[in-house]
Amino acid sequence: MRLSRYFLPILREVPKEAEIVSHRLMLRAGMIRQEAAGIYAWLPLGHRVLNKVCNIIREEQNRAGAIEMLMPTIQSADLWRESGRYDDYGKEMLRIKDRHERDMLFGPTNEEMITEIVRAYVKSYKALPLNLYHIQWKFRDEVRPRFGVYRSREFLMKDAYSFDLDQAGARHSYNKMFVAYLRTFARMGLKAIPMVADTGPIGGNLSHEFIILASTGESEVFCHGDYLDMAPPPASLDFDDKAGLQGLFDQWTSLYAATSEKHDEAAFAAIPEARRMAARGIEVGHIFYFGTKYSEPFGAKVLGPDGKEHVIHMGSYGIGPSRLVAAMIEASHDEAGIVWPDAVAPFDVGILNLKTGDSATDAACGELYATLTGLGYDVLYDDTEERAGAKFATADLIGLPWQVLVGPKSLAEGKVELKRRADGSRELLSPADLVERLKA
Amino acid sequence: MRLSRYFLPILREVPKEAEIVSHRLMLRAGMIRQEAAGIYAWLPLGHRVLNKVCNIIREEQNRAGAIEMLMPTIQSADLWRESGRYDDYGKEMLRIKDRHERDMLFGPTNEEMITEIVRAYVKSYKALPLNLYHIQWKFRDEVRPRFGVYRSREFLMKDAYSFDLDQAGARHSYNKMFVAYLRTFARMGLKAIPMVADTGPIGGNLSHEFIILASTGESEVFCHGDYLDMAPPPASLDFDDKAGLQGLFDQWTSLYAATSEKHDEAAFAAIPEARRMAARGIEVGHIFYFGTKYSEPFGAKVLGPDGKEHVIHMGSYGIGPSRLVAAMIEASHDEAGIVWPDAVAPFDVGILNLKTGDSATDAACGELYATLTGLGYDVLYDDTEERAGAKFATADLIGLPWQVLVGPKSLAEGKVELKRRADGSRELLSPADLVERLKA
Repeated sequence: MRLSRYFLPILREVPKEAEIVSHRLMLRAGMIRQEAAGIYAWLPLGHRVLNKVCNIIREEQNRAGAIEMLMPTIQSADLWRESGRYDDYGKEMLRIKDRHERDMLFGPTNEEMITEIVRAYVKSYKALPLNLYHIQWKFRDEVRPRFGVYRSREFLMKDAYSFDLDQAGARHSYNKMFVAYLRTFARMGLKAIPMVADTGPIGGNLSHEFIILASTGESEVFCHGDYLDMAPPPASLDFDDKAGLQGLFDQWTSLYAATSEKHDEAAFAAIPEARRMAARGIEVGHIFYFGTKYSEPFGAKVLGPDGKEHVIHMGSYGIGPSRLVAAMIEASHDEAGIVWPDAVAPFDVGILNLKTGDSATDAACGELYATLTGLGYDVLYDDTEERAGAKFATADLIGLPWQVLVGPKSLAEGKVELKRRADGSRELLSPADLVERLKA
Repeated sequence: MRLSRYFLPILREVPKEAEIVSHRLMLRAGMIRQEAAGIYAWLPLGHRVLNKVCNIIREEQNRAGAIEMLMPTIQSADLWRESGRYDDYGKEMLRIKDRHERDMLFGPTNEEMITEIVRAYVKSYKALPLNLYHIQWKFRDEVRPRFGVYRSREFLMKDAYSFDLDQAGARHSYNKMFVAYLRTFARMGLKAIPMVADTGPIGGNLSHEFIILASTGESEVFCHGDYLDMAPPPASLDFDDKAGLQGLFDQWTSLYAATSEKHDEAAFAAIPEARRMAARGIEVGHIFYFGTKYSEPFGAKVLGPDGKEHVIHMGSYGIGPSRLVAAMIEASHDEAGIVWPDAVAPFDVGILNLKTGDSATDAACGELYATLTGLGYDVLYDDTEERAGAKFATADLIGLPWQVLVGPKSLAEGKVELKRRADGSRELLSPADLVERLKA
């Protein structure tokens, strides 16, 4: 993408309304724009990151055997009356009357709808296990939305729902998602620590939050320092291996880890002092096993191998991609701006033409742009007439992981400069070597 | 994907509530499920097709220089008061009050919001031309929704908005989208004919609908038969070539083509009789140039090269991917079910194990499945214990373009059978030859 043809409305001043760093940086980097309280448009740069986040989530959900579908945003109130949650949900639910005065709502979550769908079609245990997910906009009408997309009213959510014949099966489904979440966050460059959690309005008796550490996190967390050294499960993992998955679950939950609500001073004190970690954290995922809480009132049953009816056991598994984008910035930024992990950066590489209009730099940039684009890299080519300093500032603000600086001086020696955003390191290379360097 | 692990709730009976063939087939093929009047969940198979349709649209929008972003579904009523359309829109607009009693709405379209965004950031003609699009759920509260996703209340829309300094620039932007639409529909295997259209509630003075011919189409259309022989513009097209694009526009609008509302008997009669075509058609896209209709009340202006303020010229360009899925089925089906064009089929290839449990067919199917998946094909492997007849019926109903039939008899001779859904032709091939055949 040539920046001269792109829409990247950078703000030079720090927006006053933004209280936290991710909100400030997302506004400054031209990633989002507020359209109403807690409702945001994702401008092209933000949309790119959101997409990359969704694609990683999708790949790991699919790998774990979950199947993608797409439920609507607007739901019938009757569905929620069936589970008894219509009145429970309070003012956070955005209630709507359509032109025929029927009670509708903008879905805050989808347990009811998916249970109704499975009830309609699934009659035998042979169709189980089943895990269906979608990535769809949700709405929760918070009293006081703030912090940008970190806590917005309209937000994107990946929610998966598992269906099993019995509790043992449901446990395996839970473990699949547990492991998929470890892989998902690791691929985004995040250290996510699973912690036992309350189940809240979703309900159930087994639940974990995935928390990433960030100094600006909303909650206090306490955990064993060894978590930071644990490697995520490999892509080659066999998700059908029940014992193997349970082993991974046990390994990742054997060490102490708790949010302040669940904190146990004595257990924490039992950790060797040097390995005790008290930090701030951000919740980025939440998984639940809730048995028959929804399948029971909905009458979602299957015939078992014993010829009898069994109420289906369910779990649900959420990640908020829009919130995750903000959380990643909270966890990874510096004075100059955002420091994206490679896997979610809006562009892989920036090319900064330090003297647009100079035939040599124009030609070298054009050639590099064509080469890198041809190799499948997402490239942002700054071909604008801004001065070099402004181009450096923009590339750092929006967090391009690799930046190629093309100026007349080094070009006279046949070299361009490759800068790594994360540590600011630079090296002079020939364009050919640079391509090899990026490949490696 | 192994069918035994997929969620494909085929209906063997014809659903009574469905009045048109696409609705019937989408229900029977397990593509969609109605969740409320005019509101549908896209089940896994339907979701796959919808995704493929969106990706083709996206690629052609990007090729034409449009930039993707994502606006929210919920909008503030104030935005619509600014354009004066809040009251105009009537009961089709889904109006909502949030917990603070603020007037909100579920967006039926986004002219207001995008104009506000561009007004906020774009100050100079140097940032133009600009074309921003998104693919997002919309809501229009039709009195009597029917025909499934062909005319639903919640529907997906790709809407693009162009911004130019003057009318000449806007004309070029219009032509870019005009040509992108020709390519988009052609890639989906559709013959779409551009016809002069009324502008309706969007407004403006230049507008074309893109109509595909289908015997079940909702409107009567009249056109020159030569349209059916015209080849779409090539991918290598230079979208910056103003004269070239105008030439293409002229070529595609020089022949007579009109819906019944705009029909001119005399002009039609002037076509040589053998080339006169009267048929049924379905609208699949609609583009508008409306000048300053929104930029004027919003005060969206830029400084021109002359140092003066200019009100921006705008156009908007819509395709409904969810409706398009239904329209494609209307245009391409037979007694047995859907006949997908290759580019949008939910799976490229089906493998039908005609004797699941037989070690030879299991092994051959497993090997083919691994080979084809490894080559990047989307494969649905029917490894269920259904009888062969039911497997044939399912593969035809859901419209898999290529079907590999693996049975013990032909396998004894080292062969499998490759069936082409579109014409029912079959040939016996060795598995190795089959792979080569699919590649070609």
